[in-house]
Amino acid sequence: MKKAKGLLVVVSGPSGAGKGTICKDFLEKNKEAFLSISATTRKPRPGEVHGTHYYFLEEDNFKQMINEGGFIEWAQFCENYYGTPKKAVTEKLESGNDVILEIEVQGAMKVKEAFPEAVLVFVLPPSMSVLRERLTGRGTETPEVIEKRLNTALWELTIAEKYDYILINDDVTAASKRLEGIIKAEKQSVKRNNEFLKEFTQN
Amino acid sequence: MKKAKGLLVVVSGPSGAGKGTICKDFLEKNKEAFLSISATTRKPRPGEVHGTHYYFLEEDNFKQMINEGGFIEWAQFCENYYGTPKKAVTEKLESGNDVILEIEVQGAMKVKEAFPEAVLVFVLPPSMSVLRERLTGRGTETPEVIEKRLNTALWELTIAEKYDYILINDDVTAASKRLEGIIKAEKQSVKRNNEFLKEFTQN
Repeated sequence: MKKAKGLLVVVSGPSGAGKGTICKDFLEKNKEAFLSISATTRKPRPGEVHGTHYYFLEEDNFKQMINEGGFIEWAQFCENYYGTPKKAVTEKLESGNDVILEIEVQGAMKVKEAFPEAVLVFVLPPSMSVLRERLTGRGTETPEVIEKRLNTALWELTIAEKYDYILINDDVTAASKRLEGIIKAEKQSVKRNNEFLKEFTQN
Repeated sequence: MKKAKGLLVVVSGPSGAGKGTICKDFLEKNKEAFLSISATTRKPRPGEVHGTHYYFLEEDNFKQMINEGGFIEWAQFCENYYGTPKKAVTEKLESGNDVILEIEVQGAMKVKEAFPEAVLVFVLPPSMSVLRERLTGRGTETPEVIEKRLNTALWELTIAEKYDYILINDDVTAASKRLEGIIKAEKQSVKRNNEFLKEFTQN
């Protein structure tokens, strides 16, 4: 049996759900999995490193990559471009590594279109009130920003039903472990093992 | 959030794949899960206990249960009737317990029709040659019986694609653990959490 392709795992969820922390914990414990690094035309913030946090591109380069079909998905927010470079992702998948895409819901829907075999995971806190508490507890956002984020969360929730899994972030370590379990289970799904089933009788 | 219904898990696989051993190990470690006990009209073999290995019924009683819709699925093999009593299964599911049905492929297809939400797991040894070795190694069957079983396995494999998961039995403990993982992952699938998603915003 030749080595199976890696799994493309899309992780989304409202701001404050903790998807970044879960992915970080997951990636620390699963060294064969990689986080896809997005490209953007926005300027780096202090401490942000090219190739670690983002690939910081000039707008011309970004647009050229769009034209060459170099992105799995891309979008423009507040005059800046953001996108998921295709090559790095497909190379990792081909070599059998799982790739995590931490992206927002609209990008996720585009990924699903381009890669129907991707697994879409929607991260949620245990309840809306917990989400509100977390956003308030950060102490970094104004009440207006928090309300805006909660409204965005409500809108994102209407798209959650297009995902494959709901991952409740009650505890980061437990949620990261469950993400690992989801990926393992997916790899045992019949639809991902048609080739194995075909070859089975020959071995 | 009210307690979720249990999961109905159908486990099938060729004779010699080790599905019984996997289920036994799984049930020992997951006390909230139950094995559905089949009913049959065949006579008990030495050591078989009514209510543990089978419910041993008279043919009249069995047929009456068929007429009353008391079986999820039933079939006749070699003049004997076999069936999965419905009541015990649905009661366990309603009270939030998972139920394992260890049945052959035709019964499994009937269960899928009656319970589309059931999860179907097909147990396989790592390869056909391992299956042959296991059947031979038992030392209890004649070469003719072994050939017959292998042919049945080939036929069963053509139905495996209708299952949800393939569970490779390379090692019983590991396979039982993966069965547990599949069940956990399934419970996080969006299609099983529509109600949670609907209620989410109200909490």
